[in-house]
Formats: sequence, structure tokens, C-alpha cells
Amino acid sequence: MIRLGIFDSGIGGLTVFREVRAALPGADILYFGDTARVPYGTKSAETVTRYSLQIAWYLVGRGVDAVVVACNTSSAYAIDVLREVLDVPVFGVVEPGARAAVEASETGKIGVIGTRGTISSGAYQKAIARISGDVKVIASACPLFVPLVEEGWLTDSVTRDVASRYLAPHLKGGVDTLVLGCTHYPLLKETIGEVMGGDVRLIDSARETAREVKAFAEEKGLRDEKIPGKERFEVTDSPARFFDVGRIFLQHELEDIRQVNIVEGE
Amino acid sequence: MIRLGIFDSGIGGLTVFREVRAALPGADILYFGDTARVPYGTKSAETVTRYSLQIAWYLVGRGVDAVVVACNTSSAYAIDVLREVLDVPVFGVVEPGARAAVEASETGKIGVIGTRGTISSGAYQKAIARISGDVKVIASACPLFVPLVEEGWLTDSVTRDVASRYLAPHLKGGVDTLVLGCTHYPLLKETIGEVMGGDVRLIDSARETAREVKAFAEEKGLRDEKIPGKERFEVTDSPARFFDVGRIFLQHELEDIRQVNIVEGE
Repeated sequence: MIRLGIFDSGIGGLTVFREVRAALPGADILYFGDTARVPYGTKSAETVTRYSLQIAWYLVGRGVDAVVVACNTSSAYAIDVLREVLDVPVFGVVEPGARAAVEASETGKIGVIGTRGTISSGAYQKAIARISGDVKVIASACPLFVPLVEEGWLTDSVTRDVASRYLAPHLKGGVDTLVLGCTHYPLLKETIGEVMGGDVRLIDSARETAREVKAFAEEKGLRDEKIPGKERFEVTDSPARFFDVGRIFLQHELEDIRQVNIVEGE
Repeated sequence: MIRLGIFDSGIGGLTVFREVRAALPGADILYFGDTARVPYGTKSAETVTRYSLQIAWYLVGRGVDAVVVACNTSSAYAIDVLREVLDVPVFGVVEPGARAAVEASETGKIGVIGTRGTISSGAYQKAIARISGDVKVIASACPLFVPLVEEGWLTDSVTRDVASRYLAPHLKGGVDTLVLGCTHYPLLKETIGEVMGGDVRLIDSARETAREVKAFAEEKGLRDEKIPGKERFEVTDSPARFFDVGRIFLQHELEDIRQVNIVEGE
């Protein structure tokens, strides 16, 4: 049996939680959402890295076998530091997403969308370039997508207008593959798909990441599906809003949500 | 000469800073933006109160004569606790806004818009009821307004669509006065005014608050306009984005921005 710690700036990482749960029904999962300091996408590399370290250390202290960084911004800024300082394997969402995009693209023109932080870090662009030198990447930030999802306007006409605006450079650039580089974006798949047209492949980093975590569990002999794994949710702000918005993400109600404080004096 | 500490969850409080600066050109002002934990509007009463206390204590430790709570959510949740524990006067934005709205309204139908936190706290509704029992209040949250302002889409067609949606209950309810109960909203005055029509008065809490702070300084003999006051900006995240978005708010560049850490271990 594998014990996994999945962390995110807040609620969005539940898309990763869902995929990991589907891939490893027997895993014990501790999901940590930093809802008192969310979002990370508009904050600096230094601040996001500091927060990510605090959370990862906390999870390791709770005895997890591996840490999954569900937050794209955190994966983009902090993954190298986390791997350097932690004694357990660390999975981010950027590399699996980048790999899947390169595999999916036939024309070698790939679009990446994400928060300001994720895009300006250049993490996806660099990860894609490491895998294939022969790819053209168009990357752009879509800061309104997260608040639109949290408002629940998943297929609203306003959301479609915003998407048309944000995705124009990708359409113009003729990408055949678009990486949804933020945990919230898979919930906008329908709207983004409509704007981009049916031929463009949408890459969901969450699903790709779950595949890698599953492969790791199998390799280490930690996959055990005899009994369903436990799950627990810990958040830094009051659980009420996490509970409410969590339903949009998981389509069922979350149990066992607790508020914790991981920073002394905070 | 008066030394003022103005704090906000982030950048938005610069609308209050601007009005206080105009009202008291001789005041020394320390502006504090909690950009590493912004926004407050989606967070719980307990978390917002804890953050507000940390900042207010820090400002008092820096020797300010009064604390101005520029953040509406913070004013809504934390003002009573702050007044209880601090030894200096504390000014919030809710009461001045409520007073101005009651004075401005002829029909007694007042609308209030703000963040989820501000609206669900009921602070404006209660403050208005305390001033006049004969007023009907329609209050609603407008969560997308802040990200739209920070995207710089102040008079965009998307913003007008969102405003039409959010303001429909106020139009339908026939309010003659609308309180802009969030620091960011004065930047949407043009768009909100277009949707509501020219006869509806828009109340800018920032301006009303500045008037009260000025009256306090005069009463205490602390108003001194012989030399222009100093100003300094302190933020908890990197100053870069505060500098960039600050220009949208002040229409000029900010000098002397420093990053500080007010929570030990954080």
C-alpha cells in the first residue's frame, strides 16, 4: 500500500486527486490545499517556493511515501528545490503534461496555457524543448479562467468570450495540441474545445501525472488494491468553501476535511 | 504631523491611499499590502481576522498614530477586534461608505456590492440599518470584478457583460444608490455607471474614509501641511507585481516599495 501526499494552492488540485484516485484505488491519500494563501498563480517564484517547501516538509512529516505537486505554478517554480531537499520522490504536473503534448502533436506546434506564474516561469516551454528540439511552443496566461471556474460559469457565454480572447494567439499560430497547464482548466474543456475546434488535442496534465504515479507504485511493489484506500483533506483556511467548491470538482461531497496550521506563529 | 498606517490585502487599498494622500498632503503614510496572501475576499472570517491582527500589530509597532483598514473584507470581519486590541484609533471603510450611502439615497433603496466575504458578513447591511431603519438594502457579491480590474479590462465588453449580470438584481430592485464595497471597484466606475444608468449614485468608500481620517487629524491638531509627507510601501510578496499593477491604480509609478516578513517562520 502506498501513502501519497498531494498538495495544491487550494481546491484545483482535486482534478489531480481524482485521477490519482482512479489510477490507484488502494492508495491512502492525504490531500493538502493551502486555501488560506491561495492563489499561487499571481505570486512570485520566491513566495511560491517558500510555501511549497513548508507544505512538502509537513507532508513528509506525516509519513507519505511520495509527494505529488498538483499545482502547476508550484511545479513550475519549486520542483527542483523540492527534489533536492526531500527524501521521498516528488512528482510534478509539468513534465508529464509536456511529455504527453509532444507525443500527441503531429505538426510540432504546441500551445500552453496557465497562470501568470506558470507561463512566465517558462517551465512548460523548457520541459517541451528538453523532450524535442523540433517543436514550436506558443504560451499564454489566462488569469480569468480560475475565477470563472470558481464562479461555476463553466460553459457560460462570458467564459466563451474570454476564452476566444485568450486563445486567439493559439488559433492564429495553428497549434494542434493545447496543454491545459492549470488544475482548474480541465473543467473548461468543453468551452476551450469549442473555441479551439475539435481537431485540437487538449492535454490534461492531471491524467498524465496520475499515470506516472501509478507506474512508480507498481515498480516499487506498493500497488495494493485489496482494500480501498483512505482519503483525507487538509486545508489552511476554514473547510466550508473547500467543501462547497470541491463539489464542482469531484461531483460528490467530500468527507473528512480538517483545518490545519503548518506555519508557527501564523 | 500625523503618521498613518494603511493596510490592505494587496494592491486595491491604493484607492484609499490616494484619497487619504489627497486629503492630508502632509501625512507620513506607511502603506502595507499583504500580497503574499491576497485575496481576503474569498477567505473565512477567522483567517481574515488573524491576518488583519498580525498586520495591525506590525503597523502599531512601527509607530503609526492611527490605522486605516483599506480592505473592505478586513473592515467587515475584523474592525471590532482591531478596535478592542489596538491602542490607536482604527478607521474602516464600511461605516463611512454606509453613512454616505444613507445620506445620498432619496428613495431609501440602496445597493451594496463587494467580495463574497464582505457581502456574507452582512457588515454593510448592519451598518446601514444602524444609521437608518427605513432603508431597503440589496447586497450581492461580484467575485469576477477584482480579477477583471487586475487584468486591466476596465471598460471591456466582457466586463460590461459581467457587470450586467451582477448588477441585474440592483437594477430590478430600483436602487438609487450603489455602494462600491471593494477597493478595486472604483476603477470600474465608468462601466458600472453605464450599466446602472446616470441617475444612480455610486458611493466610493475610499473617499468617505479619507474625509473621516482628515477630520480626526484636524481634531487632534495633527494636520500639518507645511512639508509634503513621506510615503512608503511595504508588501509581503515580491514588489514587482505591486509595482506593475500599482500604476493602474495611481496613474504614476510607486517609489520605495519593500518586501517585509511579518510572520515568524513564515
